Amino acid sequence: MTGWVVIAGLGPGAEGLVTPEVSDALAQATDVIGYIPYVARVAERPGLTLHATDNRVELDRAVHALTLAAQGKRVAVVSSGDPGVFAMASALFDALEAGPEQWRALDIRVLPGITAMLAAAARAGAPLGHDFCAINLSDNLKPWPLIERRLRLAAQADFAMAFYNPRSRSRPEGFGRALDILREECGGDRLILFARAVSTPEEELRIVHLNQAMPDMADMRTVVIVGSSRTRLIERAGQPILYTPRSA
Amino acid sequence: MTGWVVIAGLGPGAEGLVTPEVSDALAQATDVIGYIPYVARVAERPGLTLHATDNRVELDRAVHALTLAAQGKRVAVVSSGDPGVFAMASALFDALEAGPEQWRALDIRVLPGITAMLAAAARAGAPLGHDFCAINLSDNLKPWPLIERRLRLAAQADFAMAFYNPRSRSRPEGFGRALDILREECGGDRLILFARAVSTPEEELRIVHLNQAMPDMADMRTVVIVGSSRTRLIERAGQPILYTPRSA
Repeated sequence: MTGWVVIAGLGPGAEGLVTPEVSDALAQATDVIGYIPYVARVAERPGLTLHATDNRVELDRAVHALTLAAQGKRVAVVSSGDPGVFAMASALFDALEAGPEQWRALDIRVLPGITAMLAAAARAGAPLGHDFCAINLSDNLKPWPLIERRLRLAAQADFAMAFYNPRSRSRPEGFGRALDILREECGGDRLILFARAVSTPEEELRIVHLNQAMPDMADMRTVVIVGSSRTRLIERAGQPILYTPRSA
Repeated sequence: MTGWVVIAGLGPGAEGLVTPEVSDALAQATDVIGYIPYVARVAERPGLTLHATDNRVELDRAVHALTLAAQGKRVAVVSSGDPGVFAMASALFDALEAGPEQWRALDIRVLPGITAMLAAAARAGAPLGHDFCAINLSDNLKPWPLIERRLRLAAQADFAMAFYNPRSRSRPEGFGRALDILREECGGDRLILFARAVSTPEEELRIVHLNQAMPDMADMRTVVIVGSSRTRLIERAGQPILYTPRSA
């Protein structure tokens, strides 16, 4: 038996947003590794071992996956969204680079998925329809001054901006500071979308102006999108449409 | 019959990267509208009318879609990749905003897809594993000085960068200027990925340093990713792995 590792993106939550490529890989896997709520999305079956672990053990998970594959297992490391966007792919390559030379001969593939910001953007309209950036607001792995510098430069570049991990229990104050910086750089009229648990039964969308944005509008399941200076709303019955025109 | 419009992303090319949600919508549509090579990816069947048009008529296509839906048709506007990333969703909302009031009552949904930069990143490793931006290098709809300003600010923010539409016949010189700016801001050692026709039989990946990058390494089917200062290569037999670590 020849082992392999796929780092597979499960998309934001709905089954209809899981690619056939990922479904096929899960059907062939002997082992699935990942954070508890993502592993819970994979159906149990004979011959499949599920390894669910808690958050913040990304490197352990990566080493475990590579070790199993080197033993001949067919391993799927699962992330929500896209594994290459603030998820398990970089952690796996960190472990690969630091690990034994023979791991480099393994069959390793990243299988893309629908990442949270694109699912959220689609639900709201097309706020990322022009140039944009994606920033992880967690300061677990980078210093806060770098986040602040990126926010200011991104605002000056007039990018639309998507924020992952806006708020967690361990960093309750960071997102409030980010909102203050954005108000300073972009003004209070700028549109901001809070998109929570998109494509799941708990989905909630909320669009406000920056001067109405409060830190507690985001939690760990929220992706936040701030429009560029050109982003606009089309009002209509029900949810308005948030979009950034193609021209600037 | 109640009409609707979906703006659906077909992904980068492979069938395994089309979401079930998009496949279901195509199976229910009465009309498919889009650029010739994208409409060619939709199977013909009785009851389905295919409307393939040439490039650069995005607004005409959007008006056509909304007009048909208002007549009760079930219309799928197809884009490659994700329709919300430099594709048809913003064009459709431009047309909606400028069009008759009653169009706003239509059932309009954006169905996300695997966008080119994420498919390319997955194939190469995880170059977008940390903060990044996406810039459309076409100056059809925005002035060149704005592109240049965004490139410089993005480099100063130390984003990894993905470039869509790097090069076309009508703008042969723009991409060369972009590469010059990037060498100025990032230095010649920075890693750059040229990913052409990812997930199709014509797929080609090429990773070089900025001082080796030439404009003709990109064409209309290429997405270009420039690493951040932290982006690195893992050498191994065959294609090396390009990735950006999680920490910065």
